[in-house]
Amino acid sequence: MSRMKHGVFIVGLAVALAANANAADSLPSWNDGPARKAIVDFVGKVTAEGSADFVPESERIATFDNDGTLWAEQPMYFQLFFALDRVKALAPAHPEWKQKQPFQAVLEDDLKTVMAGGEHALLELVAATHSGMSTEEFQQIVKDWTLTARHPVTKRPFTQMVYQPMVELLAYLRANQFKTYIVSGGGIEFMRPWTETVYGIPPEQVIGSSIKVEYRLIGGAPALMRLPAINFIDDKEGKPIAINQHIGRRPIAAFGNSDGDLQMLQWTDAGKGAHFALLVHHTDAGREWAYDRESSVGRLDKALDEAQAKGWTVVDMKTDWKVIYPAEKQ
Amino acid sequence: MSRMKHGVFIVGLAVALAANANAADSLPSWNDGPARKAIVDFVGKVTAEGSADFVPESERIATFDNDGTLWAEQPMYFQLFFALDRVKALAPAHPEWKQKQPFQAVLEDDLKTVMAGGEHALLELVAATHSGMSTEEFQQIVKDWTLTARHPVTKRPFTQMVYQPMVELLAYLRANQFKTYIVSGGGIEFMRPWTETVYGIPPEQVIGSSIKVEYRLIGGAPALMRLPAINFIDDKEGKPIAINQHIGRRPIAAFGNSDGDLQMLQWTDAGKGAHFALLVHHTDAGREWAYDRESSVGRLDKALDEAQAKGWTVVDMKTDWKVIYPAEKQ
Repeated sequence: MSRMKHGVFIVGLAVALAANANAADSLPSWNDGPARKAIVDFVGKVTAEGSADFVPESERIATFDNDGTLWAEQPMYFQLFFALDRVKALAPAHPEWKQKQPFQAVLEDDLKTVMAGGEHALLELVAATHSGMSTEEFQQIVKDWTLTARHPVTKRPFTQMVYQPMVELLAYLRANQFKTYIVSGGGIEFMRPWTETVYGIPPEQVIGSSIKVEYRLIGGAPALMRLPAINFIDDKEGKPIAINQHIGRRPIAAFGNSDGDLQMLQWTDAGKGAHFALLVHHTDAGREWAYDRESSVGRLDKALDEAQAKGWTVVDMKTDWKVIYPAEKQ
Repeated sequence: MSRMKHGVFIVGLAVALAANANAADSLPSWNDGPARKAIVDFVGKVTAEGSADFVPESERIATFDNDGTLWAEQPMYFQLFFALDRVKALAPAHPEWKQKQPFQAVLEDDLKTVMAGGEHALLELVAATHSGMSTEEFQQIVKDWTLTARHPVTKRPFTQMVYQPMVELLAYLRANQFKTYIVSGGGIEFMRPWTETVYGIPPEQVIGSSIKVEYRLIGGAPALMRLPAINFIDDKEGKPIAINQHIGRRPIAAFGNSDGDLQMLQWTDAGKGAHFALLVHHTDAGREWAYDRESSVGRLDKALDEAQAKGWTVVDMKTDWKVIYPAEKQ
């Protein structure tokens, strides 16, 4: 073998080994079941040059819901824990909150009353805790919170309650030249401060709900000030709309866990070329939580029916995942 | 020299040559003047590892206005030519337009009357020509138009009236691991169908003005339908707001040509690390157009004052650019 041929052989071998590694060893926290097989088959066919299902790299867009898909969402959306913690932190500057709902209930740890206030109470809490500062100040507040706050049940930092199998899936897709996006009902600015570290997803690939922002010159220095008004709700029909607005391409793979993700999955599933739609089904009451059709948080009802009717992949957390959280990794 | 050392030497030589090529030969349509020097100096210092001004790759965000910065905008914004052409194409299905302004004036090529109708007339034209179809249908309409339409003065396709020096600048920045974005007052969906081919900027890096979109199931098939209602105007204060919404990072370099870009440049210029702000000044009545403080299209007045006060780079098209359009390339 000449030196040149030898070199080509080694490169060829390395490529073959890399492809093999991608398929077999990149998803170690997934059991060898139908969900893992469906993922690997899909990635294999869209990345195989010459295959009828080949998709060019620029079009390999994958969108992920966050709450309940990439990290846990029980007993309530984690952003709500953040809002409650912020009410407590800000309370000294707001003595009136002691006699004013829903703030009084928050300060008295009376979650029932908070919840009984419904959407109106939640919007008041969001307005009081998510606005009135610059985007950069808010970023720092969120960062600080993720470093100190703990989940009431697991006692873990919230950012360590991401799903290890999904973190591996994100990396596996990126290793196959997918661009991975978050498309969440959660606040876009609540996620961006930590998604790059935790998921490897940079701020420009995070899409979410947002409040209005105003450009102001403060003593000549420009700032983007957060206002107490909703700008966009990135849920249900809002998801394909936001995907179109931010990405301008239809995803070829979409991942969700609730009825809020149904339209994103429909939109992806209606694409012309090869595509993939997956639902995470919360079936593991022991290691995580078990809930679907009757849950007020992350309800999975219509989307589960449609997944079954259309043959979308449904992950059974209990049987498909070897571990749930990164700390459980062997 | 051992084989290994020899290989390292060759790789080192290639890297050195590539760096040299980046600095000297990547901007062949730029004269060796102060604007080119400012660009090359900035890129040099933010990419030099160990330099005090070094910026990690993930934060190398560069934002470009489109009309008047990346392509021409006289005698009126090119998207308006598109709207007028669409009125004519759709006229057979709208016999009432023959007696209804501003449509009648468009059909009679009476641009004065169209313009006299002001913003209201323009919004009516946009509503009639940019909505009522799916996002994918609109994409195809725009693509078809770019292939056939010609500019009334140059007789060139509009997409060949991009500025060759700016196309080189985009490529030069990307070769230095910048992510290049368009941030334009023009329609986001009007630009996306051709920006990847013409500028090398993919749809997910195009930010612009938008109309509202609705998610609909039509016979079970999902579609995003374009509605006759403004969603967002990406101009002036809107530009930093949209940059925050889409990118979630402050650019380190911003490029504009008019007062509509002032806030984007202020926002970029107020960044903590090394940053760069540039205005294209239309000074070449012979090869292009000469206009600034008095122009109704692309007015450059306040931003020119601020550029001078703050020391932003101002490109003098007449002296800084060897050629204007790609067809003039030697």
